[in-house]
Amino acid sequence: MDCAVIPLNRHKDYLLVQTVDFFYPMVNDPELLGRIAIANVLSDVFAVGVTDFDSVEIIVSTSTSFTKKEQDVVISLIIAGFQNSLQANGYHKTPLVIRQLKINPWCIVGGIATSVCRSGEIILPSNAQPGDVLVLTKPLGGQMAMDAHLWQLNQNEKYTTLLSEFSDDDIRETFQIAVKSMTYLNKNAALLMHKYQAHCATDITGFGLLGHAQNLAQFQKQKVLFKIDQLPIIKNVHKLSLLMGQSTKLRSGRSVETSGGLLISLSPDAVDKFCRDFEEVTNGEQKSFKIGHVVASSESDAVLSDEVEFIEVSL
Amino acid sequence: MDCAVIPLNRHKDYLLVQTVDFFYPMVNDPELLGRIAIANVLSDVFAVGVTDFDSVEIIVSTSTSFTKKEQDVVISLIIAGFQNSLQANGYHKTPLVIRQLKINPWCIVGGIATSVCRSGEIILPSNAQPGDVLVLTKPLGGQMAMDAHLWQLNQNEKYTTLLSEFSDDDIRETFQIAVKSMTYLNKNAALLMHKYQAHCATDITGFGLLGHAQNLAQFQKQKVLFKIDQLPIIKNVHKLSLLMGQSTKLRSGRSVETSGGLLISLSPDAVDKFCRDFEEVTNGEQKSFKIGHVVASSESDAVLSDEVEFIEVSL
Repeated sequence: MDCAVIPLNRHKDYLLVQTVDFFYPMVNDPELLGRIAIANVLSDVFAVGVTDFDSVEIIVSTSTSFTKKEQDVVISLIIAGFQNSLQANGYHKTPLVIRQLKINPWCIVGGIATSVCRSGEIILPSNAQPGDVLVLTKPLGGQMAMDAHLWQLNQNEKYTTLLSEFSDDDIRETFQIAVKSMTYLNKNAALLMHKYQAHCATDITGFGLLGHAQNLAQFQKQKVLFKIDQLPIIKNVHKLSLLMGQSTKLRSGRSVETSGGLLISLSPDAVDKFCRDFEEVTNGEQKSFKIGHVVASSESDAVLSDEVEFIEVSL
Repeated sequence: MDCAVIPLNRHKDYLLVQTVDFFYPMVNDPELLGRIAIANVLSDVFAVGVTDFDSVEIIVSTSTSFTKKEQDVVISLIIAGFQNSLQANGYHKTPLVIRQLKINPWCIVGGIATSVCRSGEIILPSNAQPGDVLVLTKPLGGQMAMDAHLWQLNQNEKYTTLLSEFSDDDIRETFQIAVKSMTYLNKNAALLMHKYQAHCATDITGFGLLGHAQNLAQFQKQKVLFKIDQLPIIKNVHKLSLLMGQSTKLRSGRSVETSGGLLISLSPDAVDKFCRDFEEVTNGEQKSFKIGHVVASSESDAVLSDEVEFIEVSL
């Protein structure tokens, strides 16, 4: 699953929760990259309901194609992004270790988040029940929104294609929605998972919504099918993906996400309260979406329903 | 210092000890690379006297220049090397997480070692005393021994130069000594640090002996000077470095090491027993070396003595 949850044999009642995550830059603003990266790193731990960290270690490798000055400026800004996000989200006292990897052809950004927990802090991702409702706490399509913005900045051929259906403002607006979503920590979602006794969750990243849903289904004690009826997608991204001939993954629920939301299985009497609370606690800045439900099944799996609905999300 | 030692605010009496380490391949045998990598990763934790791990996570990235088949074979062998070493060193019950990074132009190998400890398990690296003797538990020059072996395999120009003073058997013997040393875990050294109440230690890697000694000196409660009189060097490596015009770093105590030994500050009445025990516990397969001493000083630092002696080590 998303992160290691390891009972400490030498220290009864304690568990070690740890995740490590790396990726390559997908946005040309290093400070913003840092904020997306930290949201992505911590997300695996939030997915098991843990919101206190004993150590956060960030790891950055400069690129061999950077000049010395570029290295210094870019890496400092990435690190500032990490720190700004931790600060803004109540983690100013969390011990932070900064480590620079040896130089590498490609710039790499990542980190390690560690928490030593009592078992009550952890929501093991294995208790989905038939009848549960599936909630997703961020819209899909963040990476494509980022790509479109890079094409715009580079004024390349793909940008010219985009202009046939979108204005510059459209592309910027799409990008801004993605930024707001991808920099948002899944912390409040994790806290509400406890409040509403969520049955399991996973965070959505590289395998896409369906890939992670399938992993999560495999991990359940009961054999269950996760049926997904709706795909909430960042405004313009669906149309944009059709225009660019890159809609297959998105439409099949497999678009690669960075710092995606949590997919949470909640009992039907808790789900509306969860969604309302989530919007409230984020002052209406973020939304969660009821995207499907859990049914008993002879085989654990996750599928898109045949008449899956695409929902456009503005935030 | 070498690894993070973080008191757990939420769980009194416990500390989190964690290290992360990465490097690029320096040997063409992937299983061997795995064994060197794990020795290198764990070494930072051994340097603070900790020998029990709650989690070891290994991280490997394939190279974009590998074919799919090369990826599968090479990465499996690297992972086997990690596992073989853990198995052979009493860590078969340690939870091991294997994580493959996204593909990268260069192959990257590394890992994370985590231990949740009581304070008694940790020897904080800050109590060196004037009069202490400095012990090094592995000879220097491992990377150059590896380089020479690669030149030999590639039959390149540097190899031709080597042949003017060394036989093929010499180069292979030098390589074998380096392999034996670099794959050896610093675990026994860490255990003996407790037995002989070592005052502080560090492990020798990328900054070289002198660089790490200087870092360690800066970390002491008392102002002390670490004076180094002897440099134990793997057989043939000193002569080889002179022949190749690459002796400056080695002779100044700054040769880059991978999976080097521990540099330990011991009281003068404990040091001989430590060295004898170390040789015994390794069945004579490894040696430790008294390479210098600690004196009071107005400024914390580490220096090579003017008449530093180079000692050839065969193991």
